[in-house]
Amino acid sequence: MWTMSPNTSLATVIESASSRMVRDEKWGHVVYRATLDLTGATEVASEVGSGHSFIVDEPVSFGGADGGPGPVEYALAALGSCQAITYQFWAAHLGVAVDAVHIVVEGDLDLRGFFGVREGVRPGLGAVRVHVELRGPESPERYEELAAAVDEHCPVLDIFTGTVAVERTLTVS
Amino acid sequence: MWTMSPNTSLATVIESASSRMVRDEKWGHVVYRATLDLTGATEVASEVGSGHSFIVDEPVSFGGADGGPGPVEYALAALGSCQAITYQFWAAHLGVAVDAVHIVVEGDLDLRGFFGVREGVRPGLGAVRVHVELRGPESPERYEELAAAVDEHCPVLDIFTGTVAVERTLTVS
Repeated sequence: MWTMSPNTSLATVIESASSRMVRDEKWGHVVYRATLDLTGATEVASEVGSGHSFIVDEPVSFGGADGGPGPVEYALAALGSCQAITYQFWAAHLGVAVDAVHIVVEGDLDLRGFFGVREGVRPGLGAVRVHVELRGPESPERYEELAAAVDEHCPVLDIFTGTVAVERTLTVS
Repeated sequence: MWTMSPNTSLATVIESASSRMVRDEKWGHVVYRATLDLTGATEVASEVGSGHSFIVDEPVSFGGADGGPGPVEYALAALGSCQAITYQFWAAHLGVAVDAVHIVVEGDLDLRGFFGVREGVRPGLGAVRVHVELRGPESPERYEELAAAVDEHCPVLDIFTGTVAVERTLTVS
């Protein structure tokens, strides 16, 4: 694990981004992007806006080749990593010292939803548990305060707990 | 891109999983898992239940080292790849021939939410657009039918459009 005291560099990012967003109404609006191509039975080649590429796949038992994590695993890792990064930013912002962040995320899924085997079973996750372990010198109350700030400002947690308007278009050629 | 006609192997997976889920109430309940450790300013080492590992990071402009895609990028890729895989399964299930699946996902985020700069701005995505491109020999109506079935049964789409109960625990040491 990685040791930090309130991070100077992140504090600088926070300060400059925040003051810029207050001054400039147009700044701070970001469009994130991912491009996906089916390249196997369940293998999907993914490229994201920052230029990184990776493979998504399903396990052999699910008809895949296990060439990479599955979509739901990536979704849970997105949630857990977003929490971890939000801990860093808000620790720096609130001046809370954090020595280590370790997070385990679990999600329950009933495959009856995906396969359409039973009416009323949602295809997604019935419940998610996020276990956060922090190490550091501050009081438990300070870390509770930090965790509350993180949960209020974590983008991917908001995707899970809130509803997102998704517009889908279809082109056939 | 990858060519498939209605996939025999996936059809077999669907048939055997579906009949098993009807017979056995306990079968089909899956727990997905991700474990995350902060290993840098915004670098997070991720390992998922299927055993795959990968790095999540933020770009340099955001205080990171650009060591991998960011959490929101992974979340969008999870959505797009889940759509692509659900197209494969439901094409096999419905007997619709699909030659290629290409998907672009975009999400709008206002950083004021994450940084807590303005009240009422949600930290997550304000809107998401999923552009699906299919290639294949069937009628446009058949593909519209397929797309409707996919949107009804796609696990990660359900995470985005619905609300997920997330329980968070905190341990400090």
